[in-house]
Order: sequence, then structure tokens, then C-alpha cells
Amino acid sequence: MIIIMNGDTTDAQIEQVVARLKTMGCEANVSRGIERTVIGAIGDESKIDKELLQALPGVEDVIRVMKPYKIVARSYHKEDTVVDIGGIKIGGNTVQVIAGPCSVETQPQMDAAAAGVAAAGCRLMRGGAFKPRTSPYTFQGAGVEGLKMFRQAAQAHQLPIVTELMDVRMLDTFLEHEVDCIQIGTRNMQNFDLLKEVGRCKTPVILKRGMSATISEWLMAAEYIAAGGNHNIIFCERGVRSFETYYRNMLDVTAIPVLKRETHLPVIVDPSHAGGKSWMVAALSKAAVAAGADGLLVEMHPSPCEAWCDADQALDPQQLVQLMADLRLLTQAIGRDI
Amino acid sequence: MIIIMNGDTTDAQIEQVVARLKTMGCEANVSRGIERTVIGAIGDESKIDKELLQALPGVEDVIRVMKPYKIVARSYHKEDTVVDIGGIKIGGNTVQVIAGPCSVETQPQMDAAAAGVAAAGCRLMRGGAFKPRTSPYTFQGAGVEGLKMFRQAAQAHQLPIVTELMDVRMLDTFLEHEVDCIQIGTRNMQNFDLLKEVGRCKTPVILKRGMSATISEWLMAAEYIAAGGNHNIIFCERGVRSFETYYRNMLDVTAIPVLKRETHLPVIVDPSHAGGKSWMVAALSKAAVAAGADGLLVEMHPSPCEAWCDADQALDPQQLVQLMADLRLLTQAIGRDI
Amino acid sequence: MIIIMNGDTTDAQIEQVVARLKTMGCEANVSRGIERTVIGAIGDESKIDKELLQALPGVEDVIRVMKPYKIVARSYHKEDTVVDIGGIKIGGNTVQVIAGPCSVETQPQMDAAAAGVAAAGCRLMRGGAFKPRTSPYTFQGAGVEGLKMFRQAAQAHQLPIVTELMDVRMLDTFLEHEVDCIQIGTRNMQNFDLLKEVGRCKTPVILKRGMSATISEWLMAAEYIAAGGNHNIIFCERGVRSFETYYRNMLDVTAIPVLKRETHLPVIVDPSHAGGKSWMVAALSKAAVAAGADGLLVEMHPSPCEAWCDADQALDPQQLVQLMADLRLLTQAIGRDI
Amino acid sequence: MIIIMNGDTTDAQIEQVVARLKTMGCEANVSRGIERTVIGAIGDESKIDKELLQALPGVEDVIRVMKPYKIVARSYHKEDTVVDIGGIKIGGNTVQVIAGPCSVETQPQMDAAAAGVAAAGCRLMRGGAFKPRTSPYTFQGAGVEGLKMFRQAAQAHQLPIVTELMDVRMLDTFLEHEVDCIQIGTRNMQNFDLLKEVGRCKTPVILKRGMSATISEWLMAAEYIAAGGNHNIIFCERGVRSFETYYRNMLDVTAIPVLKRETHLPVIVDPSHAGGKSWMVAALSKAAVAAGADGLLVEMHPSPCEAWCDADQALDPQQLVQLMADLRLLTQAIGRDI
Repeated sequence: MIIIMNGDTTDAQIEQVVARLKTMGCEANVSRGIERTVIGAIGDESKIDKELLQALPGVEDVIRVMKPYKIVARSYHKEDTVVDIGGIKIGGNTVQVIAGPCSVETQPQMDAAAAGVAAAGCRLMRGGAFKPRTSPYTFQGAGVEGLKMFRQAAQAHQLPIVTELMDVRMLDTFLEHEVDCIQIGTRNMQNFDLLKEVGRCKTPVILKRGMSATISEWLMAAEYIAAGGNHNIIFCERGVRSFETYYRNMLDVTAIPVLKRETHLPVIVDPSHAGGKSWMVAALSKAAVAAGADGLLVEMHPSPCEAWCDADQALDPQQLVQLMADLRLLTQAIGRDI
Repeated sequence: MIIIMNGDTTDAQIEQVVARLKTMGCEANVSRGIERTVIGAIGDESKIDKELLQALPGVEDVIRVMKPYKIVARSYHKEDTVVDIGGIKIGGNTVQVIAGPCSVETQPQMDAAAAGVAAAGCRLMRGGAFKPRTSPYTFQGAGVEGLKMFRQAAQAHQLPIVTELMDVRMLDTFLEHEVDCIQIGTRNMQNFDLLKEVGRCKTPVILKRGMSATISEWLMAAEYIAAGGNHNIIFCERGVRSFETYYRNMLDVTAIPVLKRETHLPVIVDPSHAGGKSWMVAALSKAAVAAGADGLLVEMHPSPCEAWCDADQALDPQQLVQLMADLRLLTQAIGRDI
Repeated sequence: MIIIMNGDTTDAQIEQVVARLKTMGCEANVSRGIERTVIGAIGDESKIDKELLQALPGVEDVIRVMKPYKIVARSYHKEDTVVDIGGIKIGGNTVQVIAGPCSVETQPQMDAAAAGVAAAGCRLMRGGAFKPRTSPYTFQGAGVEGLKMFRQAAQAHQLPIVTELMDVRMLDTFLEHEVDCIQIGTRNMQNFDLLKEVGRCKTPVILKRGMSATISEWLMAAEYIAAGGNHNIIFCERGVRSFETYYRNMLDVTAIPVLKRETHLPVIVDPSHAGGKSWMVAALSKAAVAAGADGLLVEMHPSPCEAWCDADQALDPQQLVQLMADLRLLTQAIGRDI
Repeated sequence: MIIIMNGDTTDAQIEQVVARLKTMGCEANVSRGIERTVIGAIGDESKIDKELLQALPGVEDVIRVMKPYKIVARSYHKEDTVVDIGGIKIGGNTVQVIAGPCSVETQPQMDAAAAGVAAAGCRLMRGGAFKPRTSPYTFQGAGVEGLKMFRQAAQAHQLPIVTELMDVRMLDTFLEHEVDCIQIGTRNMQNFDLLKEVGRCKTPVILKRGMSATISEWLMAAEYIAAGGNHNIIFCERGVRSFETYYRNMLDVTAIPVLKRETHLPVIVDPSHAGGKSWMVAALSKAAVAAGADGLLVEMHPSPCEAWCDADQALDPQQLVQLMADLRLLTQAIGRDI
């Protein structure tokens, strides 16, 4: 930690900072420049709040030298971590495409969707039984019945299932229904009580990026899960809020190489929620994989025009087949497979 | 709802949209322009998902004509709603300042804080017993013990208390300890299960704006609470995420007149979390009140340099006294009191 | 300047940084921590590019200790600077309201506007003869003829005039027509050649903030003007781009106290372009003045419904009279006048 | 154009809107719904300012049906336009990589750079002789001398040159030195006088996206150039401003498929300025090409550690060779070449 004093600092103020650092277990290195005095804190900064130092008289700025995340950091574990979801591996050389409808509607819809997912060669299936909707007056998801329909449809094709957990009180139900991978949605990325609870089980977790979360906050949210003992975490970039209105969110493709450098955990991308339009999905999927993503989370509906939510962003089964064919060529070109 | 067809639309596509509108209970008014056909849907659009129409072939864009919010809308209730928190009214002619520390630390700290709040002439007290911290390794709040300390300290000065609820499972505990006003924090603005639960009790709720929530999403989050039967909702603007790094968040002062126009519910502002520096609080507080805010949520700590969190943004008791004096003159100038 | 080395740094890399600092005329203070080595550069950092150091092997981050701006910095000139525009002072105890239409249209329109500005008690007039329009197919301004109409109308009421300069080749024409204050618009805040040219004359300059400029970039843009010898600079906050679509721009009210701390130059606010709706102007004006603004730039049109551009954000003459009356009470409450 | 009236509209107000539309040459289609009246304007909306209608009493919102851009629109010219820069074609099946240093420094530096560009198989060279620098106190570019050095170095390898024009007064000099392609930088995207001037020559123009420009504003900036008669325009995405501080700008990869749909003109990407770090360039380049970009603008310096500006984002010659090899495989996988 580096403490920059302001231009009019007194010796007494410098001594106060040094004394405070000592109570925090740090040594201080005082460097008096021509216009500024700078104090370096030598010690473990991970448990120190910047704000505590920033409030001291004479302090202009406090800068961290170390990253605040630990278990999820690349420095903690040099090799890439591979997460196993019901036997399917994410984070290795194979790019995994998790496909399925936005929401679970009916058993026939889920059966058709599962058949389409398997036919396209995808090995994991997504679908929401509990839906975070902006309006309380629109369809809120099929609930526990939806979980059952999902499980039954996916089982027929040996597809492990990925579904969103919104309410901490539903975790036991998710575990009972043997959900293979729990998705934490963008609105809950900093729902810390939810993160702590999923940290206590061993089920793999897909952690979506908050609507306007920094990469550092996102890594710290993952750290909440990891600190509880669950290291089976997959980051999912899904676009962030921006001033542009042409599409739904701005896909932050740069987050992919940044995460691959900062963390050992796998990184996937949701091109469907990013763009918000089905015609954008192919371009965004290819960009994500070319940039190094370990997988994709893609919306596919057996009949998009009939979908109960997010109808305009779902691919149809045929488009998913085409996407997988395109990605097969692309992964070969970058030395991976699919 | 208005459906704009693209340039190459066929009659069959237009008919498909008209047919779909009928199944949704709407009449259609088809207007064929020179370059575009536009279809107006006449009927109740509040339960229609735009996306369902957007997915139909030939549709270029779908635009809502009505606001998606109802109970919280100004059109639902023309007069300003006044919310009563333990006998103190928010939303009337009197501007209310809710002051207190970021977090509950110890009984002496809370006693001193409560004395400071009362001495400055504030009528409500804030303090966090459960803290949403970015890092799992820093102080997470004093918990239920903190609620007790808070209650005891505030009681001595007849100050109703405001405190944040993060975990839906703690709601009963909050009700047992007779929390006077529940705060929903920025990270939980779209934690819909939490909103639904507080919607089922009658305790007033301060709903902070999400980190990068649009005003419309914020109103819809309030609609979740209102739809459950709890209409005692207060909006709290606390700044939004931006590209500027000089301060913590960008205070959206324009949201104040916009909310006063769109909703009948009270609007307050948190200048402490917006700016993130104690020296900014006075200017932001005055701006908020001048723009029409019904109150403020201000951090004050008996000894800011000793605070356990957000130390650099808390006022000390003397600064709070000064702020109240400044605001007294200001409220008179705009025809209100404090 | 502080250079933070990464975790695997070698001694040779540290020596290379030290050597590079010497060639830049700086001494180096090397501090070896437990996990990181930090190098402090002692010397004049104002002419050093961070990037030159960041490119060296082993360097993780480079942090400035000093502000990059000089002449415009508060530390350069402790007292508030008062800028004189044709005898009217901006930056002193009196809040100045500069009012007038978005664009110069006709002589009768300008005459009526000038009469309205004077009648409301404003002492300076604004109006655009050259308009930066998003579309090349809409009205581009009345040009030099517009300057003449503006001058004639304002003269009748002894109002100094403020008008926007877009093209560096028009500067001489502006000087010939004795424009009292040159406005640099948001799209030209970093048009460095234009800034250099207005830096060579003595005419006061209102420098609007770029669409998404940081406060630091804005101060550096002013430094371009100041470095040329023209210190008559006024900052004008006009809202920044954001994700919110309810209004035109997000007024950054926090920029006011920040600028008052960082610079000695006056700060005004344009509530008309910020909100983009005439009904928002009163609330935003009051917020700006309460937060410490030295003046306002307000759009007023003798007949807003007939205006040729930005019709929906202009006040009518009666609304301007009302605004001035409200601000009179407000300025008294904060110890200023108008 | 669609005009949505508010809930309390009177017949007189509706008639006023209809009358105003007639003076604008449009027919009106009035549709009275249950809660709102909606007026459709039938006619050429391209020359109508929304604001003129928005200012009328009773109007709640005005929505465009048609795109505001014409010549640059895909609907104006269905096939992809191929722009010829000194014999090299951009916008066809071949992906073009334009490489070179941030700024022209010395003749030996430019000679080495040109050799590196040619050796890597790139066919166009970039380099800045006039540099837009945030600070007036840092290196501002080598100027006209720089143009000469650039021309001489590039000539030796038959590389057409791309360089930035900042000052409208320098255009003739650029034409005299036969600059093959003029770059308009991000800070000048809405410098409308500069756009008009380059619209009057025939030299190809690379138009970089403004720091926080919407795609629509960007297309309209291109329309300024096209309206003058110069249709040789290439869009260059270079990242936009965001809240994320890990990298320099947020690359908007979604803008690529959006532009390919909206315009017939070529689209390239600048991964160097987007990320701001040389280690990000490969991932961003691959993402851009996979998403459909027609080319890249990449910074390469013969000795990055010695570069006079943006040193930390330049590739070295060997890294450029590697990038081209990676892109060769990638372009084959997507049916293009390089």
C-alpha cells in the first residue's frame, strides 16, 4: 500500500500515518520528494481498508500495490483450472457451448429444446425455471415444476443442466433436484449472502458479471464463493451497461484476455444477452472464442417466435447447428476443439 | 404499443402481427407510410412483452406508449405521498435528514453517534448492522448484536432507525427488533425475491438506486414492493457508476425532478456514498435539496478517523451541525423547512 | 511518480527502470517490500509520459503523484480568479446568468430575445451563429450574418455576447466582430489546434466539458489555452453521456465542488443542454447554484415552439423571469447575490 | 415520424400537431387509443427536427421511423463498398492490417518500422506526424518534417500511408504530400468543419469513432463527409470510454456486425488504442476479425521501449509477424484471406 501525502503535510501527520500503519501490522518506508511525501506500507495489505488511511489528516491518496483477490488469482494457482459439470469439462482445450431456452415453459418445449441441443453437438443445457423479470406483472418462471421438466428433458440426452438460482432459500431445492451447475445472474453478482451459501456447497457455479461491475469487483464476488470452499467457479461475461442503445448490452470482449491473465478459472461468454438480437449471436460467439473464451452460453428455442421471454434473441435449432459448424472451423484455427 | 415494420415487409407479415396482437387482446391500427408500415396496438400493453412482438418476421422495432409502472406512477395517485417512519414524516414540506455511521461498531460509538444526530436536529438515524462489503476478508458488520446496540442508542433520543436488509432470511429478525425503516441497498435493487418479501410487510422501505439502474428499472423495482401491498416506499438516489474516477459515484441530480414527475413517492439523496469524500457532502446536500429532494441520508461518525468502514466519507458531529444550519437557510429560500 | 514492479521482477529490471529515470532527470528511491518492489521517482514528473515507463520489462503499474495541470491549478493561484466579460465579472460573489436562444435565427427574434434577457435581469447573452448539428441536412446556423444580428440586438441592451467558435479559420472574424466571450463546445473540447489558437488571444473563453471527458482531461484542455497566454477561462459543466435515456445528458453536479478545489478559475453550468427539457431547467439551475456554481448558461427563446433548434429545452421569457426570482432567494441563502 | 401525445391531450393540441406536420410537408394519421393518442407523420422525415415537434403542447414523445443517414446507409447501396488506398483494397474478401508506430520520430525509426511492416506481410502503413496529446507539455508530433520522413520510409516498400489530420488548415499540405489515406481521430469525430473539408477531396478517410459516440452519431459524422462528395470512408472502432479501469477503452466488438448491417462501407478495428497494452492486441485482433472486421490498425514500433509515445501498447516487429501468422489461420477458417 502506498500513501501519498498532500503538498502541505506536516511531520506530525506523517507520524500519525506511520503509527496507524504499525497498528495494522505494517512497516513504513517514508520517502520525502521535492513536492510530495510518499509512504510505502510494507506488510500484508489484503485486510487493510484503504478508507481507514484515506481519512487521516494530510493524506491525499492511497494506492494498493497487491491485488485484493487471493484464491481466484492466477498467482494462487498458475495452471488453468478445469471445472467438471456432470462429467463435462470446462476450461480445458475443448470449447463448450451451453445451449437452451431462456425459460422453461412446458414439457414438450423442453423436450424439443433438449433434442435440438444434443443434435447440434452441444454437451450442456441451459434453461431458467426462476426468472428475474424487470416487471412484477410478467411471467416469473415455472418454478420447481420447471426444474422437474428441465431435468426430465435433459436426462433423455445425458445433458447436465445449468439453471439460475435467485433466492437463497431455494438452494436446498436445487441440490435435491441435482442441478449440475448453478448460475448466479447479473443482478445477484453482489448478493453476498447468496454467494456465501453457494460457497458452502460443491456444485459448480457460473458467475455472471454484474450489469456494470468492474473486473476487480467480479473477481472479488468469486472470492466470496471460493472463500467458502467452493472453487468450481466459471466466469460468464454477458455485456455491460452502456450509452449505446442499438443493442442490449455492450459485450466486453477485452474482459476475456484480462480474466485469463488474472485468474486460473474458466471464462465463458453469453452472446445472447449481450447483443439481445439473434442475428448478432454468430458474430459475437466467434469473437468470444477467438479472444480465448472457454465456452458460450447461447439461447436456443425450438420455436423462437413462440418463446415466452426474450424471444428476439434466441436462435432456432437450425441456426444452432450452423453456429456449431462455424465454431468447429474457428476452434481448429486457434488450436482448440469443440 | 407501436410496431414499426421494416422496409421489405410483406402483407402476410403484417397480418401475422395483427393476428398476434389479437391473441394478446389488442386491436390493431395499420398505417401504411411511403417507406414504412406502422401498426398501432390499441389495448392494455402493460402485460405484453415487447420481445414477443420483436421476434416476429418483418418487425423492425416495437415501442411502448404507456409507462410500465402503475401503483408507483404519479398518474395512479396525483398528490405527493407522505411516508411515516415511526412518527416522522417524509415527503411533506419538511426536509428530513437521516444521519448516522456507516456501520454499527460498539455501544459507546452508537451512543455518541445518536447523541450527535439528535444534537444536530436530525430526527431519524441510520447505521448498518449487516454490511455489503466488496471483499469477504473485511469487516462484515456486527449482525444481530449490532441491531440491538443500534436500537438502544437511538431509543435514548427517540430516533426511529433505518438499517439495511441484505438477506431475505433476516426479515423476521428485523421485524422482531422493530426496525422502523428497511433500507434496500444498491446491490439488491433487483433482488426480486427480497423486494417481494418486504412488499408483504408494512414497514417503510428506502429503495436505493442500483449501481447503473435506469430510472425506469428503479420504478419497476419499487413496483415489485408495491405490488405486494407495501406502498411505504422512499426512493434514494446515491450516485451511479461512471467513467469519472475523482469521486466514488456520479450523483444524478436530474433524477430528482424526474422522479417527482413520474412518481408520487418521496425522494431522498445519499450525498455520502455519491461523492465518497466528506468534503463533498455539503455541496451535494445543498444541490439535492435545491433540486427538490425530500430528505438526505448522511454518514456521520463520532470520530471519523476511527471508523471501521468508509472512514473518509463520514462527517464529524460538528460538521453535521454546520450542514443542518446551512440547510435551514436553504430550505427557507425554497419555501420548505427542516 | 511511483513505479510498481511485478512479482517476478529481477534486479536487472529494477536497474533498468532506475537508469531510465536518471535519463529523465529523476532520482530513484527503491523500496523492496515482501511481495513487491516499488520505485519512487523524485523530480519533475510533469513532462514524463507514464507510458514510457510502463513499457519497460517488469513494470506492472506507474502512478502519478503530482497533478498534470499547472497554470489552471488551484496550487498555482490560491485565490479565485474573476474573469471580466465586457465589464461583467464571473467568478466573484455575484452569480451570473447568461441567457439567450440556442441559435440566431432572425433580427426580430434576436431583438425580442435580447429584450427578454435584459428584462429578466441577466447581464450577458448567448446565441449560436455556427451550430454543431448531428445531421448535415439540418439548419447549420446563420453564420457571419448571424453574428451581426446578434451584436446589434445585444448592443441595444448593453449585453456582452457569448457565442460558439467551431472552426479555427473563423477566429479572426470573431475578433473583428468583437465577440465578448468565445464558447468552445463539447465536441471541440479536445480540438487542440482550436484551443491553441484561442490561447493566443485575450478574449475570455467558456470551455464546455467534452461529452465524456474526465475532469482531469478537461483541466488539461484548459491548460492548452492557458499555456498560450490566455488565462481568461471559464469551465462550463453541461452534463455527460450516460446510460440513462430519460434526459439528454447526466448533469455532473459533483464536478462543481471538485473544480472549485482543483482550479482557481470560475465554473458555470448549462442546465438546458444537460436536461434537454425546459421543465428540468429550474431544478437543475437551483442545484448548480446551491453546489457552488458561479453562473449559468440558460437557453431562452422568445417563442420556444417556433425555435429552429432545441425547441423543447428553451425557457420562454416569462419562465426566465421566474427562474431569476427563485435564484435571487437562493443566492441570498448561500451568501451570494445575482 | 410518430408523435405520442400525453394522457391529458386536448383536440386543439392534436390539431396543432397535425397543422405543424402539414407545414413540414407531411400527412398525419391520427390514432386515438384508450389511454393515448398517437399521430403518424407520413412523408420525408429526414429533414425534420424531432425537437420542433417535441416542443408543442401535449406532445409526450416523438419517435423516428426512418434512419437519419442516407448515403452511408446499406439501403442506399446494397453491396459492400470496397475502398482503394493507393492500390490496396479495403472492404473486399481480404483482411488488411495497417501497421506502424504511434508517432513519427526519426528517419531511422521510420525506416526500420517500414521494413518491419513489409516483412510481416502488411500492405499499408500508419504513423502520426501530428499528435493529439492530452497535455500541452508533451511531444506534439514531428509535423510536416514527419510527413516527409514517413513518405520516404514507406516509399521504399511501396506502402501507402495513413496519417491523422487534426487541423483543417493542414489539409492542403496533406494533399501536397500525397497522403494516401487521412485518419480523423476520435477527438475530431464531430469536428464538423474538418469533416466537411475532407468531404471535398477524394482521398480515402478512416473515421475513428468518438470517445463515447453512439453508432448513429458515428454514421451521421460519416454522412457529413459523404454529403460533400467523398464516399471513400472507412469506419474504425477503437473502443469507447467506460467505467472499467483495467484497460484504456472498452472495445465495442458488437459495433462490427451492427455497422456491417447498417452501412455498405468497410469497418476496421484499432486493437492497440482499445486495450492500451501490447499483450492484449493479439486477443482483440482475433476477436475483431472473427466478428467480421475488414481490417486492423495496429501499432508496431521497431523498439517499443524506446517509443516517444504510447510505448506500452506497441507490438515489436517479431510480435507483428506472429500476429499475422495467427490471423492467416483465422481468416482461412472464416472464408477470407489476409
